[in-house]
Amino acid sequence: MQLLDKLQWRYATKAMDAERAVPADKVERMLEAARLAPTSSGLQPFEILVVTNAELREKIKAVAWNQAQVTDGSHLLVFAAWDDYTPERINAMFDYTNDVRGFKNEGWEAYRQQLLATYPGRGTQVNFEHAARQAYIGFGAAVIAAAFEEVDCTPMEGFDPAAVDEILGLRARGLKSVVMLPLGYRKAENDWLVNLPKVRRPRAQFITEVA
Amino acid sequence: MQLLDKLQWRYATKAMDAERAVPADKVERMLEAARLAPTSSGLQPFEILVVTNAELREKIKAVAWNQAQVTDGSHLLVFAAWDDYTPERINAMFDYTNDVRGFKNEGWEAYRQQLLATYPGRGTQVNFEHAARQAYIGFGAAVIAAAFEEVDCTPMEGFDPAAVDEILGLRARGLKSVVMLPLGYRKAENDWLVNLPKVRRPRAQFITEVA
Repeated sequence: MQLLDKLQWRYATKAMDAERAVPADKVERMLEAARLAPTSSGLQPFEILVVTNAELREKIKAVAWNQAQVTDGSHLLVFAAWDDYTPERINAMFDYTNDVRGFKNEGWEAYRQQLLATYPGRGTQVNFEHAARQAYIGFGAAVIAAAFEEVDCTPMEGFDPAAVDEILGLRARGLKSVVMLPLGYRKAENDWLVNLPKVRRPRAQFITEVA
Repeated sequence: MQLLDKLQWRYATKAMDAERAVPADKVERMLEAARLAPTSSGLQPFEILVVTNAELREKIKAVAWNQAQVTDGSHLLVFAAWDDYTPERINAMFDYTNDVRGFKNEGWEAYRQQLLATYPGRGTQVNFEHAARQAYIGFGAAVIAAAFEEVDCTPMEGFDPAAVDEILGLRARGLKSVVMLPLGYRKAENDWLVNLPKVRRPRAQFITEVA
């Protein structure tokens, strides 16, 4: 399967070529993959910021252990999850779904009421963690899309989320950064990881068949 | 891009054809996609259970709102995250990486010490939530792989995780179920969702360019 070849090809790029930029159409298809990714109840409880601004990326690098990919890549994707599920956010997505479909569905409306009755009361932290998990599905889709575009990227959790939120003004928008993805092209001669074998636990330590 | 076509094709299948089983080689490639998915520091802090046992799937269905796909599909994938990051688990993965690479890397060993000094002390809940996010990357990869195999599946969070953990004996293994994925083939004539348009927020409400 072509997907497995792409997953084998990709790796967490440690050195990006600062002279090469990723073409806009390739970035666009990565964003579209993240947008199309499934999320719980279809709520898509996250957004993506595409940071190309050099000054802001310098500031972000400073709160990300000075990882050079943040500025040597041409684009920095910041995945930011909803800080909470509010009735407004839930209703907006159900209303929008009705608009797109052109009709109201009784079962769907009952499901809306079920979410409205349960999600807001679960508490902010539970809801944020739930939203963050959904963001990781979209994040994974973007990483896979990058491989299909033969674009390198570096999955990155090593940063101070509160500081990134401050730099990008995310809290005022009800968002919290959870994971970042610099995009670019590998600078192989400077990359200690590029020629090392990919390491994954053997199938027997990862999969259990319950037959 | 072929990936986008696959993402457009897939949907959360609501009715599975109980007479059709997914061939083993297709399931295998989905599991391999999840195994190859990136995770934080390469720790792969989750496992996948492939449940085909009919009796156990009946029990799981009973704690999953009686969603019929659990038993009408031919396979049920249960993604279970590590309940914590322990020194043993961290060391096992770093040791295994050294075995595969055939050498010790000074920077890599320093990174091991950094994780050992920080992860266990973050607390069980923080570590479990972190592990769960990684499981969702692998989960997303499996969903995408299913689409490449033209296999239907249903991303499923609507179940009682503690009850599923009990049915599958996960707690004794230091695992907690976080998301499930029944696999099968759609029974289109019984599926209310199959012909409805896919709904996603428009790009403008999902992407912010910071240039």
